[in-house]
Amino acid sequence: MTDRDEAFMREALKYAYMAAEDGEVPVGAVIVKGNEIIAAGRNRRETGKNALCHAELEAIDKACTLLGGWRLWQCELFVTLEPCPMCAGAIINARIPRVVYGAKDRKAGSCGSVVNLFELPYNHKPELRGGVLEEECAQALQDFFKKLREKQ
Amino acid sequence: MTDRDEAFMREALKYAYMAAEDGEVPVGAVIVKGNEIIAAGRNRRETGKNALCHAELEAIDKACTLLGGWRLWQCELFVTLEPCPMCAGAIINARIPRVVYGAKDRKAGSCGSVVNLFELPYNHKPELRGGVLEEECAQALQDFFKKLREKQ
Repeated sequence: MTDRDEAFMREALKYAYMAAEDGEVPVGAVIVKGNEIIAAGRNRRETGKNALCHAELEAIDKACTLLGGWRLWQCELFVTLEPCPMCAGAIINARIPRVVYGAKDRKAGSCGSVVNLFELPYNHKPELRGGVLEEECAQALQDFFKKLREKQ
Repeated sequence: MTDRDEAFMREALKYAYMAAEDGEVPVGAVIVKGNEIIAAGRNRRETGKNALCHAELEAIDKACTLLGGWRLWQCELFVTLEPCPMCAGAIINARIPRVVYGAKDRKAGSCGSVVNLFELPYNHKPELRGGVLEEECAQALQDFFKKLREKQ
């Protein structure tokens, strides 16, 4: 599964880089059905002026619209940063069966860092793989924050 | 604080009843700034065909739009049912300082039932009060599911 996971993570990274170009913390996500990307999202919290504008929520919203229902049981989600509690909860609510993330988020990550919501007794427990293209995903964040500090 | 909390919970209940009329599990929420309701939401998961269509997310989305930013630090959120992990996470992300809920949700509640996300070491810990108009909030849900069973 490694090459396939890495290939989709590279697609998610493209959305993270787009976010950085807009001055947003670079996080990107894609949702895959079979072997096709059906939805993508990126962090837009600052430009969207909205606490809900995380990459995963944007991708889930688009996938639900596309598939016409709230259950994304045929889908996988790839995201460059470990999901926060809101996004991990949305993944549970949408019944996404498999989640792959890149870099760990020690402050808000809710798939192993602060807590692992996928191990708690909710009515859905996604399969989880972390650390795919971890270095590139973390580097995108480090480069962004370094540039931000240089500007200030 | 009891009467004030109950008064706003009664407003949230109105949105729960509207949800029930649309055939949705009756959950309603309002966001209060000072003593004014600035946003409301209700569960629309089935009609919206979207896993994100919970009452709290709708209300947070509207409040961010109204106030023009992602930080709702001046606001309180009142919701008839204990927030799920997605909504509890959104409350943390939006920096809402105080949350009041009605009925417990033993299956997905993430403010004390399955877990209490507000006690974990995230960068924001909302003040929490549960059980306000608990009976009315739970009754709305029981009535809804009873009618649903009778129809089937």
